[in-house]
Amino acid sequence: MDDRSGVTPRVPEDEEDEFGLAPRLVDEVLDAVAARDPLALDALLDPLHAADIADLLEQIAPNERRALLALWKGGVDGEILSELDESLREEVIEALSPGELALAVQDLETDDVVDLVEDLDAEGQAEVLAALPAADRIAVEKALAYPEYSAGRLMQSEVVRAPSHWTVGDAIDFLRSGITLPDQFYHVVLVDPRLKPVGYVTLGRILSSRRDARMRDISEDSFRTFHVEDEQGDVARAFEKYHLISAPVVDDDDRLVGVITIDDAMTVLDEEHEEDILRLAGVGEGALSDSVLDTIRGRLPWLVVNLGTAGLAAFVISRFEGTIQALVALAALMPIVASMGGNAGTQSLTVAVRALATRDLTRSNAWRVIRREAAVGLLNGLILALVLGGLTVLLFGSWALGGVIAAALVINLLAAALAGVFVPLLLERIGVDPALASGTFVTTVTDVVGFFSFLGLATVVLL
Amino acid sequence: MDDRSGVTPRVPEDEEDEFGLAPRLVDEVLDAVAARDPLALDALLDPLHAADIADLLEQIAPNERRALLALWKGGVDGEILSELDESLREEVIEALSPGELALAVQDLETDDVVDLVEDLDAEGQAEVLAALPAADRIAVEKALAYPEYSAGRLMQSEVVRAPSHWTVGDAIDFLRSGITLPDQFYHVVLVDPRLKPVGYVTLGRILSSRRDARMRDISEDSFRTFHVEDEQGDVARAFEKYHLISAPVVDDDDRLVGVITIDDAMTVLDEEHEEDILRLAGVGEGALSDSVLDTIRGRLPWLVVNLGTAGLAAFVISRFEGTIQALVALAALMPIVASMGGNAGTQSLTVAVRALATRDLTRSNAWRVIRREAAVGLLNGLILALVLGGLTVLLFGSWALGGVIAAALVINLLAAALAGVFVPLLLERIGVDPALASGTFVTTVTDVVGFFSFLGLATVVLL
Repeated sequence: MDDRSGVTPRVPEDEEDEFGLAPRLVDEVLDAVAARDPLALDALLDPLHAADIADLLEQIAPNERRALLALWKGGVDGEILSELDESLREEVIEALSPGELALAVQDLETDDVVDLVEDLDAEGQAEVLAALPAADRIAVEKALAYPEYSAGRLMQSEVVRAPSHWTVGDAIDFLRSGITLPDQFYHVVLVDPRLKPVGYVTLGRILSSRRDARMRDISEDSFRTFHVEDEQGDVARAFEKYHLISAPVVDDDDRLVGVITIDDAMTVLDEEHEEDILRLAGVGEGALSDSVLDTIRGRLPWLVVNLGTAGLAAFVISRFEGTIQALVALAALMPIVASMGGNAGTQSLTVAVRALATRDLTRSNAWRVIRREAAVGLLNGLILALVLGGLTVLLFGSWALGGVIAAALVINLLAAALAGVFVPLLLERIGVDPALASGTFVTTVTDVVGFFSFLGLATVVLL
Repeated sequence: MDDRSGVTPRVPEDEEDEFGLAPRLVDEVLDAVAARDPLALDALLDPLHAADIADLLEQIAPNERRALLALWKGGVDGEILSELDESLREEVIEALSPGELALAVQDLETDDVVDLVEDLDAEGQAEVLAALPAADRIAVEKALAYPEYSAGRLMQSEVVRAPSHWTVGDAIDFLRSGITLPDQFYHVVLVDPRLKPVGYVTLGRILSSRRDARMRDISEDSFRTFHVEDEQGDVARAFEKYHLISAPVVDDDDRLVGVITIDDAMTVLDEEHEEDILRLAGVGEGALSDSVLDTIRGRLPWLVVNLGTAGLAAFVISRFEGTIQALVALAALMPIVASMGGNAGTQSLTVAVRALATRDLTRSNAWRVIRREAAVGLLNGLILALVLGGLTVLLFGSWALGGVIAAALVINLLAAALAGVFVPLLLERIGVDPALASGTFVTTVTDVVGFFSFLGLATVVLL
């Protein structure tokens, strides 16, 4: 494009975060907004990458954001909208006039437009679609007809394809003929006369081969296609596993309809990770820029569920009130057994949930993993029981009490290990995301087993 | 390469997992191993991608793996070794003779060899290095001299570069001249006479431009370089954020020494996610193929730490034994307050740890995030206190007990929210990975505050 970028100096090492947005810059931007100085604002924002501008909009307060957009909304382009967190897109799009919006989105590839509009409400969607040139609008509407989270939504419809009988020279002449090419492409896809993809050739190979070489003779081993309705997560993991850079997407008739590139796969993989980690913690979707109310809406349901399971544990304890009354030290000791079980269960279930997500835990090794977890739970339980039992004997002078807490700990750590693998496997089998619900079930098990085994054994042995 | 791959049919939809290894195939491989039939084994394994063969080796039992390797070790190539989980590489490499190993690694790019040997013990490293051609060995040794997890270790030293004054025609002639090119490359890096990178041109642009176009005139805006000592995690996040495909790496003198490609960045990002999610759960490094002893070594330390913090909670409770003796229902109710706090704290801290990792939580918005978490904690606390307090009044017929548990819950959820943000921020500030230690600190806070506020209020109000 231009070569100004060629001399951009690397951000110096002493910046707080080399690849992020310098806090000092954020302060300067806010100063310019406060001073209502559009020129200073322009000078600060213009050199920034769209991703950094989006970060900045996410990090400042809502009222600062409104003031900034009022002063600078001509500067918001499609790339910035694409980079923005979903939770803010609607807000920013509403701040633009239809004309500004049309200008902003017209340079985007269709896959970026799809990503931009799919989470907007109907009104916002219509507004963006109306702003597109007709050909792009049709491509976007076609993509939106595919299921959410499908390859069809992820792909770009701009594909560079060539008949499989072409030579390298044919391909180069075609590429030089002035046709519109996608911003980024890494392969030329070879198709048969019915538009079925049959292979692809990397650009590096085209460039380094003789003009008379046949394209099909220099095509890549790594070639594989996806179907428009494949799950985005599966596609992204296949990209990672097989080191793909781009891959053709076909429809039900095996005809080439688009191509997915690795940068989109990388974004999907990152979103899946985010989802897993947040779901494991009982946090629904959630962005840091969400409002207090949105955040409560994401978290309260899980706390309510936890209230139920904690109530169950309380009920178990209440059945042993006579025992506690007789030996009140039990009340202080019992949470240790439950808490250790909860921690051990979380360890097992996190490993299992992660292994299910990466397809490392399969039917082939499930039983071996279960046996390993059971062995780990049992041995960890025995080691910790020795420590905890010993300390209890020392502090309370009762061999019986030490034996009870040691036995309860072994039982609960074994239960934790087994629940930690079985619960995710079971949820996966019945089609529930294990990341979403495993934690609640497993800690319910470890609470109930922990309190019941400790207080139950105490009732039998000590009273 | 060949065009056999061009007609590979897509795996049919009814397979258990479209992009994984079919369990049926694993069974067939094990049957062939049991029958000591190397030809059948070859026929099954040969068509598989190296990543699938590595998965298979990871999923079968250790004794099955030994038997398979004894029968098929000539088939293990460098790609399979690269794909194998670190925990198994040493085992597999030891099963190969020096000659087999030399054959296996000679076709790998230097970055793959570095990735392969960096986690081997000294003996294994020496074995692989000895198997390399001299030029590759020097490049690998040079890479190993850079710090672990640095860009220098991630980059490949094979770079396609061109003087910045060249035309497109010069570049194409150079690429066609029969020089050895990397397997995968996406840009030609433009350098000045002192080998400082000053820009890069995508292959797509070279292919679609006229031969007399000047390379520097068609170079990309997205150009940015990394330093050999940059952290791999920072590099990977920059790739994702700025949608990079490849980027040059420079040394202290700003000279071009290598290039990092997006597939390597994607792998790093995936490893960082894995690390975060496992650390949050108190699981050290850990692969599903680890032995029972290795697994215990990873998990036991965290359980011991938890034993300490659970002991602290038990100590707090023991200070109130008189209160519990007087009103034994408190023993059943108190774990509810602690457990709700633990859950709410985990929600806050997971969001904070994740936001710190993605650089979404910064100095610029830390105070706003803290205020938001406090508001969420307080409001969730009030809503849940109403429910729990109400139920307590209904079940126990005591307004005072209901009031005590409601007040304790509000206090603990506020403490959980604040600890959930402050602890990760503090750990990050003092240079400790927040994913590693936040959980322990936060649940200690919520246990202690939960038991203390509930039993303390009960002592004051109810006795």
